[in-house]
Amino acid sequence: MHDARTLPASKFAAIFDEISTIGARPSEGVTRLAASAEDGVARGLFAAWMEQGGARIALDAIGNQFVCFDWAGTDAPWIFAGSHLDTQPRGGRFDGTLGVLAAGCAALDLSEQASAGRLKPTRNLAVVNWTNEEGARYQPSLTGSAVFSGALPLDDALTLRDGAAISLKDALAAIGINGEKGTVPPSPKAYVELHVEQGRKLLEAGRSIGIVEGTWAARKTTVRWIGRAAHTGPTPMVDRRDALLAAAQGIAAFEDVIAANFPLLHRSAARLVVEPNSPNVVVDRATVWFELRGPDVAELDVAGQAALAAFEKSAADTGTQLEIVADALRNPATMDGQLMTIVGRAARSSGFEPLTMRSVAGHDAVALQNSGVPSALIFVPSVDGIAHHPDELTLPDDVQAGLTVLTATLRRLIEGESHAG
Amino acid sequence: MHDARTLPASKFAAIFDEISTIGARPSEGVTRLAASAEDGVARGLFAAWMEQGGARIALDAIGNQFVCFDWAGTDAPWIFAGSHLDTQPRGGRFDGTLGVLAAGCAALDLSEQASAGRLKPTRNLAVVNWTNEEGARYQPSLTGSAVFSGALPLDDALTLRDGAAISLKDALAAIGINGEKGTVPPSPKAYVELHVEQGRKLLEAGRSIGIVEGTWAARKTTVRWIGRAAHTGPTPMVDRRDALLAAAQGIAAFEDVIAANFPLLHRSAARLVVEPNSPNVVVDRATVWFELRGPDVAELDVAGQAALAAFEKSAADTGTQLEIVADALRNPATMDGQLMTIVGRAARSSGFEPLTMRSVAGHDAVALQNSGVPSALIFVPSVDGIAHHPDELTLPDDVQAGLTVLTATLRRLIEGESHAG
Repeated sequence: MHDARTLPASKFAAIFDEISTIGARPSEGVTRLAASAEDGVARGLFAAWMEQGGARIALDAIGNQFVCFDWAGTDAPWIFAGSHLDTQPRGGRFDGTLGVLAAGCAALDLSEQASAGRLKPTRNLAVVNWTNEEGARYQPSLTGSAVFSGALPLDDALTLRDGAAISLKDALAAIGINGEKGTVPPSPKAYVELHVEQGRKLLEAGRSIGIVEGTWAARKTTVRWIGRAAHTGPTPMVDRRDALLAAAQGIAAFEDVIAANFPLLHRSAARLVVEPNSPNVVVDRATVWFELRGPDVAELDVAGQAALAAFEKSAADTGTQLEIVADALRNPATMDGQLMTIVGRAARSSGFEPLTMRSVAGHDAVALQNSGVPSALIFVPSVDGIAHHPDELTLPDDVQAGLTVLTATLRRLIEGESHAG
Repeated sequence: MHDARTLPASKFAAIFDEISTIGARPSEGVTRLAASAEDGVARGLFAAWMEQGGARIALDAIGNQFVCFDWAGTDAPWIFAGSHLDTQPRGGRFDGTLGVLAAGCAALDLSEQASAGRLKPTRNLAVVNWTNEEGARYQPSLTGSAVFSGALPLDDALTLRDGAAISLKDALAAIGINGEKGTVPPSPKAYVELHVEQGRKLLEAGRSIGIVEGTWAARKTTVRWIGRAAHTGPTPMVDRRDALLAAAQGIAAFEDVIAANFPLLHRSAARLVVEPNSPNVVVDRATVWFELRGPDVAELDVAGQAALAAFEKSAADTGTQLEIVADALRNPATMDGQLMTIVGRAARSSGFEPLTMRSVAGHDAVALQNSGVPSALIFVPSVDGIAHHPDELTLPDDVQAGLTVLTATLRRLIEGESHAG
């Protein structure tokens, strides 16, 4: 069996280009934060496009969009494919959006084949757009997929607040999402996600398709230093309790201690909220979002303790108080072996030799896999490994490769290819 | 001559309590940023109160409010008294507001005395509320007084932008200020400002009245580190150009180098803007507002060079680029000696032995004095020296002392007491 055939690449390009304009600004990439007005527009365009193709749309209470093709009847199992339409601020066009729209194209293609009798579905298909994968506006990330799979209680997610104190519930309501709508499919038999690699391993190996076997763990720690507001002029230096100085020393020490002792871990402090943030007021509160990522949870634990000691030292040195606002461990995922086998067959039958690899970043497929939904994650190359940046790019041939392998994989799953193969 | 008499303390308390509610939130002090809606409400209340007392209000193009008492005719010289009604975010009630409302009370009192024939004005009086003294929303601070005195071009001030990119011109228009209104008085013969000390020297000396002889210089430098946005997960550590790490190392090194080599200078980094400020994106740009304050400009120059070297090192160490966005020197002021003499006489004749002292902070009186308007700055004590904090407090007896001395000083100036005395 050879799955390769003319695929709707022009169809993909048309909808991708259209969605890519939503939230785009010249040389600033795309800013389409979860549950923003821009996200609302993108969701609407996506839904309209899919409805034209004969799908029905359902929404769950956290706003995940399910584009349903009920080919095999009410009692048949479901296959999901998708990713997310939200982006980082000034993010790229491909991250997430590729996976949703490629799954949409694959679904339309399979739908045509089913109508023409060239596909015999024994399972239903839903294309899913998961809410707030990025975690840019609301933390934690992977919100929608974690709620769907039961890892995050719905109420905890709806009451998350963004930097302007707007709850996710209110933000969703502002774009017309007020609870479940339509019949949401049950937990699927398998979930497949196509995503850009965001690294350089595929390019270095000269491959177009990666099959993720597992992901790194991540430890995400939000730390607050509490000082005391005071005039930056007359206040004697000895009286100052400067929360920004504490945070700066904490960030610098975090880099030093992790680089020296755990050089293979990926580390970052990328979000900082300063209060009151006036040039003439000694900073009262500084809150920093730290991340440590690595393959081994035990090493993250030891590194986390070393980081905490550095944070405590900077608090002591500046006379500020330290508060751990959040400290969450994301376990490494081991992706589903049987699904990996099926993706590998689909890739090879389409003419691509896949690279088996690990993912450093989390993706919705990781949240689902870790909650018991067998999941597959397919990577296509990112030029120069650039991610979360306006220059993010996957070349057209690689997009086509991803579309081809995703479609071939879904065809096999829809026709009921057993995981055991 | 003895100037002390029953002063309108209850009148002061009534308007002060009313204005203090505008922008106030429980345990968060007062947030009444320049040209905000709250500022607009406070301006309106203040103007209505003064108009009831028989004054006419004029506005200049930067929004400075002039409450005019034209007692001595068109050709007579003017005396100004005032301060500012804008506050820091989560600021105190007394900073600025005390000086405006005390001058308003003094003006009403003197107006009554003039009507009753107990005061013979040879000069006119204007109570002035200067726009954006604090520099919290728009930098530089002292905007209104600097424009009035010619130190800052009007167009430069109107085109300043706040953190949300709203120009000062648009912000003023939003509260109904669209250019000059009424006849603005000419540059005055003298300006007198009553202000809270924001330090502890008066308390330590057991005095209620301070006469400022001069102020410290300040060097305000805004520095930007430019990195490269990237995914905090997969991006290899060696590829990262982390602007927040650079800023953190810069802030920590600034503290170290200044504390070690220039321990008597006051130093701070109190405002930091991080872009894009998402937990999952390596920071692209970090902009930090640094301050150095000290009595001696030459020392600030040398210290500034040492700071710059530290900033350059942090840029080099992190592979980021350094940009100096702004670097402004505020010269130390020497307040007007003849006005100091008159304030001293007014204080002693009211029963207060004043403390001659220096101010670390800048005030509108400093901007005017440095631009050639003879100016006096009178301090009253701040409990525990607390400033730019909700707990800022000046005790009622000290407020009364300030009101008494300000009124007595203005009486002397209005009646034409010669600076030479």
